Amino acid sequence: MRRLKRLDLHLLQGVNHTIEENDRVLILDPRGKKYLITVTNRVFHTNLGKLDISELIGKNYGDKIKSHMGKNFSILKPNLIDYIYMMRKMPQTINPDDACQIIANTGISAGDTVVEAGAGSGAVTLLLSYTVFPGKVYSYDINERFLKVAKENIDTYGKGNVEFKLKDIYDGIDEKDVDLVSLDLPEPYRVVGHAYEALRAGGFIFSFSPCIEQVIDFRREISKYDYTEVKSIECIIREYEVKEKGTRPKTRMLGHTGYMSFARKA
Amino acid sequence: MRRLKRLDLHLLQGVNHTIEENDRVLILDPRGKKYLITVTNRVFHTNLGKLDISELIGKNYGDKIKSHMGKNFSILKPNLIDYIYMMRKMPQTINPDDACQIIANTGISAGDTVVEAGAGSGAVTLLLSYTVFPGKVYSYDINERFLKVAKENIDTYGKGNVEFKLKDIYDGIDEKDVDLVSLDLPEPYRVVGHAYEALRAGGFIFSFSPCIEQVIDFRREISKYDYTEVKSIECIIREYEVKEKGTRPKTRMLGHTGYMSFARKA
Amino acid sequence: MRRLKRLDLHLLQGVNHTIEENDRVLILDPRGKKYLITVTNRVFHTNLGKLDISELIGKNYGDKIKSHMGKNFSILKPNLIDYIYMMRKMPQTINPDDACQIIANTGISAGDTVVEAGAGSGAVTLLLSYTVFPGKVYSYDINERFLKVAKENIDTYGKGNVEFKLKDIYDGIDEKDVDLVSLDLPEPYRVVGHAYEALRAGGFIFSFSPCIEQVIDFRREISKYDYTEVKSIECIIREYEVKEKGTRPKTRMLGHTGYMSFARKA
Amino acid sequence: MRRLKRLDLHLLQGVNHTIEENDRVLILDPRGKKYLITVTNRVFHTNLGKLDISELIGKNYGDKIKSHMGKNFSILKPNLIDYIYMMRKMPQTINPDDACQIIANTGISAGDTVVEAGAGSGAVTLLLSYTVFPGKVYSYDINERFLKVAKENIDTYGKGNVEFKLKDIYDGIDEKDVDLVSLDLPEPYRVVGHAYEALRAGGFIFSFSPCIEQVIDFRREISKYDYTEVKSIECIIREYEVKEKGTRPKTRMLGHTGYMSFARKA
Repeated sequence: MRRLKRLDLHLLQGVNHTIEENDRVLILDPRGKKYLITVTNRVFHTNLGKLDISELIGKNYGDKIKSHMGKNFSILKPNLIDYIYMMRKMPQTINPDDACQIIANTGISAGDTVVEAGAGSGAVTLLLSYTVFPGKVYSYDINERFLKVAKENIDTYGKGNVEFKLKDIYDGIDEKDVDLVSLDLPEPYRVVGHAYEALRAGGFIFSFSPCIEQVIDFRREISKYDYTEVKSIECIIREYEVKEKGTRPKTRMLGHTGYMSFARKA
Repeated sequence: MRRLKRLDLHLLQGVNHTIEENDRVLILDPRGKKYLITVTNRVFHTNLGKLDISELIGKNYGDKIKSHMGKNFSILKPNLIDYIYMMRKMPQTINPDDACQIIANTGISAGDTVVEAGAGSGAVTLLLSYTVFPGKVYSYDINERFLKVAKENIDTYGKGNVEFKLKDIYDGIDEKDVDLVSLDLPEPYRVVGHAYEALRAGGFIFSFSPCIEQVIDFRREISKYDYTEVKSIECIIREYEVKEKGTRPKTRMLGHTGYMSFARKA
Repeated sequence: MRRLKRLDLHLLQGVNHTIEENDRVLILDPRGKKYLITVTNRVFHTNLGKLDISELIGKNYGDKIKSHMGKNFSILKPNLIDYIYMMRKMPQTINPDDACQIIANTGISAGDTVVEAGAGSGAVTLLLSYTVFPGKVYSYDINERFLKVAKENIDTYGKGNVEFKLKDIYDGIDEKDVDLVSLDLPEPYRVVGHAYEALRAGGFIFSFSPCIEQVIDFRREISKYDYTEVKSIECIIREYEVKEKGTRPKTRMLGHTGYMSFARKA
Repeated sequence: MRRLKRLDLHLLQGVNHTIEENDRVLILDPRGKKYLITVTNRVFHTNLGKLDISELIGKNYGDKIKSHMGKNFSILKPNLIDYIYMMRKMPQTINPDDACQIIANTGISAGDTVVEAGAGSGAVTLLLSYTVFPGKVYSYDINERFLKVAKENIDTYGKGNVEFKLKDIYDGIDEKDVDLVSLDLPEPYRVVGHAYEALRAGGFIFSFSPCIEQVIDFRREISKYDYTEVKSIECIIREYEVKEKGTRPKTRMLGHTGYMSFARKA
């Protein structure tokens, strides 16, 4: 098994510890604004004053640090979701609310192998890699710029179990006995056959598409192979305002992110 | 840390292997009906004929087995989601589609510590335990019958990292430095203060409630403590029919499961 | 202008009056079950006993009548929505919740002229005819059986301003200066051009379709003509349970009725 | 019955006619922007050039008029929905998509009598008055400023069948044998008893509220009287983008307008 990186050790310890140089720390200002920083000897500027970051060394998570304006900032241990929201973003990334439906519908867990295409900024890649660790994620992309951003994000926040490939998944999948093929592509139907070859019996294909035409094409192709448990869903998150003056769904909501389709190799 | 059980080893290997006695196997009939069975020397009855289970030994996942009526059944390796759907169920269990929002909103991952109350049949318990493994889940319940069902399910399908407690969480939480307190209770507001004591800085409280009155009470109590990132959501899953004759949302849908509230200790 | 029928006079009077023979009356049993009956000299059987209908004559709306089992039934004046729900139904009728979006989106009102195709049982026809009265509704259908049911319903409950035509609207529309063309057809795109000819400037075309493919075809055809205010919507009704033990959306809901598209001749 | 106003005559004629001075006309620019104007001898300024309005006299609906920049504007006959959208607006008006649910759920139609409170800008008032004409709408408000705006709007666009009352409906309702009591108030539960007195047997009470607490209070009060057909709903409109590149629900949607409750006097 590959060597665990420092970050993973923190996660596996699952306990508070004294902050050291080069630790990644989440700083929370009194208004709820968050900053994800690496502990080094430097000054960090915020709307509520300057912070001397070297003061963090030797403190514990849950302690406070004061800005030069006298404001108290909380020191928190960051986690997966902080990393995802702090990542350098690309347009049209699948959001975590949708991405977690992959876990709910495919049951992937520690030790599984995932092939992914269309990683965008790598947000889903990070979720998948945390979920299957120490299993591996193989991430295909033909866009060098996207691949570079995703790789930087995963190098920074990941667990060392992601392999990026500058390769067109429409041409085929190298891996075998794969537990999940996860797609965020313009023409996902073109991967249905390749995925069938790559998946283990009982493994899943997942496809995210903003438009219904992509779903229709994908499902038509799926029906040509021996897939079972085929379904297409939307996950609609409705957020509520709970205030003194009353409780109600928020007036403005995200009306649509994308359609998610699942199928399982029989 | 407790010894890994055989099941976990399979998961960590993440590879196909030859089926042995006592393995857990998913059998899929030609119509898509699934059976989760343990490999022993016995006959298993299905709607499409009898299966000689001992024939499974020595076969590989993806192979087929014939019933005495000549029907082919696929042999698949089961996973987390199969376990959850095959569990002995209790009424009003949080479903996986909702439960995975816990991961999306709190970012819990390997190594984290979770305190849970109101496990029901243990479906969410299993998801949480897989997610934080080798971290631990402490599950409180005052109902001995529910606790027994959940324990049986987790003993059967779990990873050995869940501790059940016959204890009223309204009276307090024993654990400290907890990453997540997860509640499915009639009066979740009564745990808000205890959770604040138990959570590490940056840890989350999560509450699932079918009715809005519970959300209102919970949020009122949350506002008395130094919690941040407070939100209440519904996750609405809309499933689509994609057929030759046309594509449309299913006519009947699950209109409401419950409200989910999150808050983070600042 | 055609002679007003008795029913219309009641509506125009808008006041209570003494019940006479041949009046249409709504009877409400103690459990909330409704019966729409015509006042004649006969016995009417209900789950809660027999009613002597001739007893109604001379009573006022709001009075009670006793069954032979001693149960009290309320006597109410029926209205449009009672007629719609009491009509002999055909499968796949547009429901009133959707149909009223026609009014909200096209603003049709008294005096307007409507051409309709695919009336089903005539529920929408009745709503439209009440809305535009004394304007007229022309209802096309090629299915004699459907036309017969709709005609019977409209003859029973309508206002005398509907003209049925056994004619294929795909072949053209006879009327001119029409305010609304309302379609519930398998291939609504085939009427887009005919509607453009029939509509007055500023008039609307409306189409109801269960599947998205029909919407796509319809919208493609719409884009070839000078239509404005083009939109496609779904109207999703979410009903709530408000009980002593708590308030929540109903568990089971109608997930989809149909897509509704509107366009206005520029 | 009161004298019909000119506007009503147009509606009742339901036919195109030659435009005369003082007619109300809808002007549509080439980009789809609409202007509702009264025909007088003047110049009207638009983004696409000046229009000489006197040129409209003698033209027919459907004709075009050119701006001084050479742009063609269509001349349309306005209708109810144009009036509603062109009205001077107040904050938090019930929108037509919601308001039409009143028709779908109560079946009010020509000749009915309506009592309304909380008219806002009068948008719902106008819809109700068109629906029940020649029946009457009595509109209560205690806010003189709101009443003035609503009255101006209704005087401009209405049918002469609305009577405004500067009166607190919490103190009681003057009218009897009412078909509908329609409420958009902060404390609708305070009108439940008064409405019960005012309604005819079989008449409806309707209440619109943004927050769920108002619904809970309203329903508790409703349960104290002999109301039937009690229900509380939300009407959620989901709009679709249908473009060359694909079809999907709009990304941004109106997440919540308000809860609508209905009950019928038994």
